[in-house]
Amino acid sequence: MNEQSNGLVSRVTGTVHVIGAGLLGASVGLGLRERGVTVTLEDLSPTTVALAADYGAGRARTADDPEPSLVVIATPPDVTADVIERALATYPSAVVTDVTSVKLAPFLELTRRGIDLTRYVGSHPMAGRERGGAIMARADLFKARPWIVCRDGETPAGALALVEAVALDLGGVLLEMTPEEHDRSVGLVSHLPQVVSSLLAARLVPAPEQAIGLAGAGLRDTTRIAASDPELWVQILGANRAPVVDLLDAFGADIAEFADALRDPDRPGAKRRIADLLADGNRGVARIPGKHGSSDRFTAITVLVDDQPGELARLLTELGDLGINMEDLRLEHSPGAQIGFAEIAVLPEVAERATADLIERGWRTL
Amino acid sequence: MNEQSNGLVSRVTGTVHVIGAGLLGASVGLGLRERGVTVTLEDLSPTTVALAADYGAGRARTADDPEPSLVVIATPPDVTADVIERALATYPSAVVTDVTSVKLAPFLELTRRGIDLTRYVGSHPMAGRERGGAIMARADLFKARPWIVCRDGETPAGALALVEAVALDLGGVLLEMTPEEHDRSVGLVSHLPQVVSSLLAARLVPAPEQAIGLAGAGLRDTTRIAASDPELWVQILGANRAPVVDLLDAFGADIAEFADALRDPDRPGAKRRIADLLADGNRGVARIPGKHGSSDRFTAITVLVDDQPGELARLLTELGDLGINMEDLRLEHSPGAQIGFAEIAVLPEVAERATADLIERGWRTL
Repeated sequence: MNEQSNGLVSRVTGTVHVIGAGLLGASVGLGLRERGVTVTLEDLSPTTVALAADYGAGRARTADDPEPSLVVIATPPDVTADVIERALATYPSAVVTDVTSVKLAPFLELTRRGIDLTRYVGSHPMAGRERGGAIMARADLFKARPWIVCRDGETPAGALALVEAVALDLGGVLLEMTPEEHDRSVGLVSHLPQVVSSLLAARLVPAPEQAIGLAGAGLRDTTRIAASDPELWVQILGANRAPVVDLLDAFGADIAEFADALRDPDRPGAKRRIADLLADGNRGVARIPGKHGSSDRFTAITVLVDDQPGELARLLTELGDLGINMEDLRLEHSPGAQIGFAEIAVLPEVAERATADLIERGWRTL
Repeated sequence: MNEQSNGLVSRVTGTVHVIGAGLLGASVGLGLRERGVTVTLEDLSPTTVALAADYGAGRARTADDPEPSLVVIATPPDVTADVIERALATYPSAVVTDVTSVKLAPFLELTRRGIDLTRYVGSHPMAGRERGGAIMARADLFKARPWIVCRDGETPAGALALVEAVALDLGGVLLEMTPEEHDRSVGLVSHLPQVVSSLLAARLVPAPEQAIGLAGAGLRDTTRIAASDPELWVQILGANRAPVVDLLDAFGADIAEFADALRDPDRPGAKRRIADLLADGNRGVARIPGKHGSSDRFTAITVLVDDQPGELARLLTELGDLGINMEDLRLEHSPGAQIGFAEIAVLPEVAERATADLIERGWRTL
């Protein structure tokens, strides 16, 4: 490790070469530069390289540069395999990793081509933003996010350590999976919800205005990610085809089963089946970690907040004054309404006192 | 209108009798009592009546009470038709309304029984909470929420006016629809998202722990309402069977079409179809009113917030100091992480300056 002048320690040794200087690539560069690592950049677009360099993500690679110790590939999913192959050939002693959100397809494609993948370690930081580009890059994009590393039996310890060093330098939380486990997992927790949310939102396109006017927080939450970039998702879903098709088939069968039970509710067991499927939903959502969705771990207090600047800040300040630790916060606001609802999650044991304290201070709770 | 001593004006004239003193019934009683309206209560459970009365939602009805001018029925969906029939018979000159979330089934059932529905006006305030019971009741539960009134050609103007008076006294936003329009609308914006969210969350039940560990904000948002009460939803979905089955069939067909296109992406037009369906999702979500989900109207700034008491309040206070009007706020927090992400929605024209101001004050933005 090298202690840098700014006090940040780098685990990475040698030079890192980043191919693809968009959001993820430029963010890798920025984060490593903060730790004093030498970062060189490459992109199909010279403008993108120049922009990322201006941002402080590294500098364009020159013919005089020595071979990098690590190549990080952050290109769109559909060219990842080609770029990995080229990087392994161009830098014959470098370790090569990629940050693509699908891991099995490029691995199988390269194996099919007979490429020696000993120096390749796939990885996937679970970070991203709805808008891409170097202009959105940040050194702390990966901070506190899961960073999955896919090794295999052939992976030398040194290669693995170098990729892990990058993940840790960038603040990621390391997880190890096989490419198959990774792709099935992200299929379930990311790709299936994306398709479901998109198709649910697509149902709103032909709906009458008055129906849309009744939309509440439930519809808004279930369709939020439907705003994601279609072009990127065509690539991601295409690259993780088999697991996503399996998941969609199973989910579609659930929808059909539910519809059938509801169509003929007097059939023996139909009402029970509907209730069981809804109860399974309760059990499923309770498994999700994190502060959102963990309604079994926290109690929600809904506070009415006037739609005026500073009101929410005043509420949170008073919560602090009262010593109430807020575990989560959700806002809801009806169009045209002069009032909003702030749902505050607190530990169950403090909920009653917190509510009483807020009411005493003049807040209205639901 | 009667000016009350507390300054609140009541549009409702005469006595209001509430049948079903749970969350909605007791909230109706509380809100009307605030305006000095005489409210009597009835429930299958004497304990529930006593509890609601203790809360200030009204008092138990006695034999000496004159006939109410309005009966508000707030019973579970599966007994609503029976209770409407009984109320129309018991109070032969009163107007009768109900607040059940499904409007066509009770109407058709009562018509089938040959009941004269001239004095009945169905309504549906779009309010509720994940937990029910009189103990959760609030006078302002209906404030700023849509309140749908279903009249028909036979409805006398006086009956309609009385139901609308209750809705307005309780702060609701009046909307008029036919029962068919209402049921199709709530089917689309409330019942379909509920089933989809529940079945998506149900898929998590058998998933390996490591997959669940990769869950991000997308999964949390899409499955939040899967925590709703299965027993209540069995009733709601059963009462709105026909529209929900149609919606599930159509949605299931979309899922199957998407899965087929993804299964065989080299088929002519398959990739285009995937992209089109995802783009339809963009268009659908853009139609939803309100501050959430309107990513086309606002720009999001993501600010890193240390997981310490008071940090979020400090951020919001500084936003106020800077004169930045926050249109929406979302929090995201990874398990075990010492840092959270606050996504602040602002008008596009102020986003750049707001970001610069925040950075100048030492905040880190993504």
